Amino acid sequence: MLNLPVDLIKRALEEDGAASDITTLSTVPEDQWSEATVVTRRDGVIAGLAVSAETFHTLDERITVELLAQDGAQVEAGAVLVRLKGPSRSLLSAERVALNFLGHLSGIATLTAQCVRAVQGTHTRILDTRKTTPGLRSLEKFAVQMGGGHNHRFGLNDGVLIKDNHIMAAGGVAQAVTAARRAAPHLLKIEVECETLAEVEQALEARADVVLLDNMDVETMRSAVALMRQRAPQVLIEASGNIGTNGARLAAVAETGVDFISLGALTHSAPNFDVSLEFA
Amino acid sequence: MLNLPVDLIKRALEEDGAASDITTLSTVPEDQWSEATVVTRRDGVIAGLAVSAETFHTLDERITVELLAQDGAQVEAGAVLVRLKGPSRSLLSAERVALNFLGHLSGIATLTAQCVRAVQGTHTRILDTRKTTPGLRSLEKFAVQMGGGHNHRFGLNDGVLIKDNHIMAAGGVAQAVTAARRAAPHLLKIEVECETLAEVEQALEARADVVLLDNMDVETMRSAVALMRQRAPQVLIEASGNIGTNGARLAAVAETGVDFISLGALTHSAPNFDVSLEFA
Amino acid sequence: MLNLPVDLIKRALEEDGAASDITTLSTVPEDQWSEATVVTRRDGVIAGLAVSAETFHTLDERITVELLAQDGAQVEAGAVLVRLKGPSRSLLSAERVALNFLGHLSGIATLTAQCVRAVQGTHTRILDTRKTTPGLRSLEKFAVQMGGGHNHRFGLNDGVLIKDNHIMAAGGVAQAVTAARRAAPHLLKIEVECETLAEVEQALEARADVVLLDNMDVETMRSAVALMRQRAPQVLIEASGNIGTNGARLAAVAETGVDFISLGALTHSAPNFDVSLEFA
Amino acid sequence: MLNLPVDLIKRALEEDGAASDITTLSTVPEDQWSEATVVTRRDGVIAGLAVSAETFHTLDERITVELLAQDGAQVEAGAVLVRLKGPSRSLLSAERVALNFLGHLSGIATLTAQCVRAVQGTHTRILDTRKTTPGLRSLEKFAVQMGGGHNHRFGLNDGVLIKDNHIMAAGGVAQAVTAARRAAPHLLKIEVECETLAEVEQALEARADVVLLDNMDVETMRSAVALMRQRAPQVLIEASGNIGTNGARLAAVAETGVDFISLGALTHSAPNFDVSLEFA
Amino acid sequence: MLNLPVDLIKRALEEDGAASDITTLSTVPEDQWSEATVVTRRDGVIAGLAVSAETFHTLDERITVELLAQDGAQVEAGAVLVRLKGPSRSLLSAERVALNFLGHLSGIATLTAQCVRAVQGTHTRILDTRKTTPGLRSLEKFAVQMGGGHNHRFGLNDGVLIKDNHIMAAGGVAQAVTAARRAAPHLLKIEVECETLAEVEQALEARADVVLLDNMDVETMRSAVALMRQRAPQVLIEASGNIGTNGARLAAVAETGVDFISLGALTHSAPNFDVSLEFA
Amino acid sequence: MLNLPVDLIKRALEEDGAASDITTLSTVPEDQWSEATVVTRRDGVIAGLAVSAETFHTLDERITVELLAQDGAQVEAGAVLVRLKGPSRSLLSAERVALNFLGHLSGIATLTAQCVRAVQGTHTRILDTRKTTPGLRSLEKFAVQMGGGHNHRFGLNDGVLIKDNHIMAAGGVAQAVTAARRAAPHLLKIEVECETLAEVEQALEARADVVLLDNMDVETMRSAVALMRQRAPQVLIEASGNIGTNGARLAAVAETGVDFISLGALTHSAPNFDVSLEFA
Repeated sequence: MLNLPVDLIKRALEEDGAASDITTLSTVPEDQWSEATVVTRRDGVIAGLAVSAETFHTLDERITVELLAQDGAQVEAGAVLVRLKGPSRSLLSAERVALNFLGHLSGIATLTAQCVRAVQGTHTRILDTRKTTPGLRSLEKFAVQMGGGHNHRFGLNDGVLIKDNHIMAAGGVAQAVTAARRAAPHLLKIEVECETLAEVEQALEARADVVLLDNMDVETMRSAVALMRQRAPQVLIEASGNIGTNGARLAAVAETGVDFISLGALTHSAPNFDVSLEFA
Repeated sequence: MLNLPVDLIKRALEEDGAASDITTLSTVPEDQWSEATVVTRRDGVIAGLAVSAETFHTLDERITVELLAQDGAQVEAGAVLVRLKGPSRSLLSAERVALNFLGHLSGIATLTAQCVRAVQGTHTRILDTRKTTPGLRSLEKFAVQMGGGHNHRFGLNDGVLIKDNHIMAAGGVAQAVTAARRAAPHLLKIEVECETLAEVEQALEARADVVLLDNMDVETMRSAVALMRQRAPQVLIEASGNIGTNGARLAAVAETGVDFISLGALTHSAPNFDVSLEFA
Repeated sequence: MLNLPVDLIKRALEEDGAASDITTLSTVPEDQWSEATVVTRRDGVIAGLAVSAETFHTLDERITVELLAQDGAQVEAGAVLVRLKGPSRSLLSAERVALNFLGHLSGIATLTAQCVRAVQGTHTRILDTRKTTPGLRSLEKFAVQMGGGHNHRFGLNDGVLIKDNHIMAAGGVAQAVTAARRAAPHLLKIEVECETLAEVEQALEARADVVLLDNMDVETMRSAVALMRQRAPQVLIEASGNIGTNGARLAAVAETGVDFISLGALTHSAPNFDVSLEFA
Repeated sequence: MLNLPVDLIKRALEEDGAASDITTLSTVPEDQWSEATVVTRRDGVIAGLAVSAETFHTLDERITVELLAQDGAQVEAGAVLVRLKGPSRSLLSAERVALNFLGHLSGIATLTAQCVRAVQGTHTRILDTRKTTPGLRSLEKFAVQMGGGHNHRFGLNDGVLIKDNHIMAAGGVAQAVTAARRAAPHLLKIEVECETLAEVEQALEARADVVLLDNMDVETMRSAVALMRQRAPQVLIEASGNIGTNGARLAAVAETGVDFISLGALTHSAPNFDVSLEFA
Repeated sequence: MLNLPVDLIKRALEEDGAASDITTLSTVPEDQWSEATVVTRRDGVIAGLAVSAETFHTLDERITVELLAQDGAQVEAGAVLVRLKGPSRSLLSAERVALNFLGHLSGIATLTAQCVRAVQGTHTRILDTRKTTPGLRSLEKFAVQMGGGHNHRFGLNDGVLIKDNHIMAAGGVAQAVTAARRAAPHLLKIEVECETLAEVEQALEARADVVLLDNMDVETMRSAVALMRQRAPQVLIEASGNIGTNGARLAAVAETGVDFISLGALTHSAPNFDVSLEFA
Repeated sequence: MLNLPVDLIKRALEEDGAASDITTLSTVPEDQWSEATVVTRRDGVIAGLAVSAETFHTLDERITVELLAQDGAQVEAGAVLVRLKGPSRSLLSAERVALNFLGHLSGIATLTAQCVRAVQGTHTRILDTRKTTPGLRSLEKFAVQMGGGHNHRFGLNDGVLIKDNHIMAAGGVAQAVTAARRAAPHLLKIEVECETLAEVEQALEARADVVLLDNMDVETMRSAVALMRQRAPQVLIEASGNIGTNGARLAAVAETGVDFISLGALTHSAPNFDVSLEFA
């Protein structure tokens, strides 16, 4: 199916030399088959089971993969996620790449889930950003979803987000919004980044659809939200800029009433989630 | 030049939609040129300047890039790393991808440098592993070098590392080493993974070139090193397995006298290094 | 630069066997240079000059290309668009592919410009659709812009357009809009396709951002526009569905007050625009 | 199988974002299956059923496709061409690309069939040219065959066609033909383009295998054919150059006795053939 | 330029790991520059200088390459073919791939030249076949030209060659030729493979354009040529089938009067031509 | 499976135009099926059966392939290697590419086997080199294995081999070995090329792991081996440099006691092995 990153999986297996695994080819008989399981070593939220399964299949289509959990599941340390059966050589040669996908994506899902829990009880959504690992954006944004987060725009071509340099170049907030409204496809909303209350007022006057509160302290955010809810209740509000993944801080930001908090750390600083392959 | 990951850079720009940056195309005049700088926001070791520069060039070859630092340099927060000049549109549209490379790789270099410093004064080298982000292995292993670390084998095809499953399949340590010696190219050494002192003894008897001490406590490691130095002083010793990046623990492991400590965390759990693009 | 379709150009030259032009290689001396011009044979709007120039460069970088017109220019029959100079062999071998691009894209721009003229004096914009030639969507949507048209969403991933099958599957208009609002990135508006006034009312109740009037006669469209302007003046209105490129019909639709008319014919049925290469 | 354009199909689905169809993913349940049919909306000749079926399969191999007609069939408006069954999401997400292929190719087949009918009763064959859409030549030439037309050379590397610029460069018709005969593979015939009777005579003297009558009026063509049939009856005759697809004009040209009429319009100006996907 | 096999060159450098030449990177300083020459070690005909030069450029565009000979030149042992200047590391890392191209192609050109010389004084041309190394056909056919040979058809899509299996399937020689004449583009001649004089007669009756005498002894060939020259002097004659590269045998075959001798050995069994890189 | 060169197979079929085999498409009915066998025409060792089978499958997955021999088998002229059944058109269109792979690789395996037999009774192994056909290294090195030979390093990135230019650049043998030991991954041995006994002594002093005796006469080799066995018995010894494939010479070199003889001719000068496809 198209939505599995088959080219990336092939490149990853090739960069690992998985088809020429000298150790395995020389020590494991060609006709030996094994059973193995993928097991977690800590608690967290899983993402990447399908891509992991496809990795084993890509190396050797004779491997059968039974998924015992689903992407998005909250699991505990020691949980068995996958049951595998196939030629021992192929299981050993594909192991590392498959686990690299699973550990990286589950790490993102797990961190996202922590942030989502921190704002539970508010209406605020946790969003990712475009601060992703080059070449892995689709997978990483999928992992954010699995952790309960939502996706911001995928790239520069499917959303309008006007920042200070755009405003300067256009000659002002109003001019920038007007120019974007004229040129952008009509299905796209216009978001404007603001660092001060004065800029928020300009964005509202320019009839922005969404306002991004950038690098504001919580107090200022609260004032901005109040101002906007009164003046233009239909305008959406996003908070961003070095907010970090600390739970208390996330809760405080959420309680200002913003609609979204976007966090680069979800995708660029999530530690790996520890999983291992165990042979029966 | 061949060693720049030009295909990856193109894929990364494409996944970001950098050639169709709606916001920029609609708000910034086509003929406007700007100057900008890439600036660090914390202390650390830099890696990825060349790939970052190539990212700007790939989007628009009219951008000129002046590097003010070199990959591998220790820098302080606020340091100016790069000076850029070119069409404003192109600078804005390439910014995120270029910084994603630089932040990710500098994060790895910075974490590696911390680990290297922790074992300073010993002869122990810090090594990476094959636990890398799919598709980015070359870059990440380069970043480890920039941080002062050394590279383990690149993939399954350029080194022999016999693990427990290989030993079981081959029918014993001796059989596995002999089989690998017969099949592997003659320029490759044979490394054997051991979890106990008994296994270390078997590896020595089988005439392994390198022994990997896996998941041992420091005390057992010390005994293993003593045993090996006495019995087979030419055999190299690597420590691995959930050692982590804690400085004190690294120092303790290094002081056992092992030749190498390999750390998955260098490449799979390094937090992003914060850099930003500032317009003049 | 990234936004030129270099891979497509290479594929097109390869499918034409341009590097092995037997006729030219056997009859034209290797060291002969020529000058040539690209000339129009009828009136119209030009698109594709840059891609055309890149085609010549891709085959032979020694060819110099001087553009005498710009994409988007209205030209008359006989106008000289491009002046070329280079090895005669390369000019002859690249000619057909270069003109195929230019003729196809200028055909689209010219037809678009006719449609735009037909609705002049109204505020209605002419839009393209996703009914494009496989593999050429970016170029064809660019040609629509050059003809004065605007682009609808580029693909299924950068806009939400709910059609009857989505409504049926979701269990009603309200449910479909709510589901889309929950899952879609917050920068995307929600458009709903309606075939009757009753459906328009449902779409308004469900708080759609945009309504598409599909296959309505002009009279019904007029009623729909009146209804919407009164009830929800901020909602945008698109007319679509077999409207065709007849000027009078386009004018009549535009006069109903719709914001957009989208036309598949712009990209799937525009006749080729005749251009030729003439040697000095 | 190799002759399906699998890479083009994948590119087309990717440019449509078919794997990330936000609307469908958010409104249609993952486990819903549907039946649907592809139906014609006007009379014509069909081409592209196999590529269309492969498009559905490429997006989701679980879709079953039953073809009720064959490429090359003459069909009436309302005919059911294909019966589909599969996950509703995948049917909806692949629909547009599949129909874009089918509509484009059937448009070419239909126009070709009209031209072929216009010359019925003569021995003249209708040929395509190299004036095709970049990247789609194989498919478009296949569609011409389905309409009853024949293919001219596929590219510059599988046929010799000497035009005026080649003649000038070579120093005359005789020199050009001799040079081509010497350099071209021995399985290729040599065709020479002529605009006047004098040039036809030169081509015969130079022993061309085929003569192309370019941009001649019908009267001159008739004289040229007479001259050639008398002097060199084995030489083949092709008419070309702005002949167009008007039936009466095609009949008049065919009646001059030429062996072939080649028409750029078949591939560069055929209007789309209207087909739609209907859900049961 | 398009006709250099840039993708193949990149693949070849990648399969050699030329960008990660551990030996060179660790022993040669980054800023050292060298001069070097490519020198022949035996007499022969050169082919592949341009592709060789491009190989150096692809690895490092700072390398300057001066060609002292041209493809197709007859050279003696010790001749200096190329003068190189550039970073020492890059010269060393690209050396093997560049020489692999040059040695392989010059081997083919040299063997071809020997065969051409063997038939000197006759009008017979030496042809290659489709028995080429997978992926290198263009280069190998170019090398045949450089040795003074001519190219047979490039592939199955640019020539018609009817063999015994085609004849059986079509129901006879006449039926096969007629079918091919109907379906093949009109610029292609029809060649028929014959093993006996009876089959030659059938081919003539079927009006084949070219006859291939397959696996005949010289005596039978002579009779076949006599028969054909008398009955159909315009029909071309090719000899093929295990003729080999022995000079006397080639001369004997040529003296039967055939127009072409095609030899698989030119491309599938030419020994490498010895060239080396010498540093100043 | 990953280790079949699917991309190369596709490229090879495309360069042969196998999907547009004009002759076959026009003379062989679409629904005709045939049986055929692949038969050897001389004695030798087979390599390439799997890649050959995959070639038929890639063109048409309906072809069934039964392998009657295994790669590495010694076969006699007339042996049936493969039994095929499938659409006649596809068998004919894939034939040439499939046989090109099989003939090329079996040629290498056969030549390798001859060299291996020549050194039988000694402990010397026959090795290949990096002198392979660009793009086919994996396959050619596999063929060497099938002939009983062993593989040298695959590329510049998986082994260290210090040659004279490296030594000069590093400032001496000792410096070069030290530099490589510092920079190379710890699983790689260090080999040093020596042309004289003096250089061998230096290499031993520098503690090289492997010594390559380059271009030495047999007498000098014998002295070198004696010297090394006495001084550093664990160091491996390779002989190389224009040794050729003459059996007597190979035996003489092996009898000096070297561990390895590496031969460029195995891969760059092996004549094709003759196989053919016969229809039932």
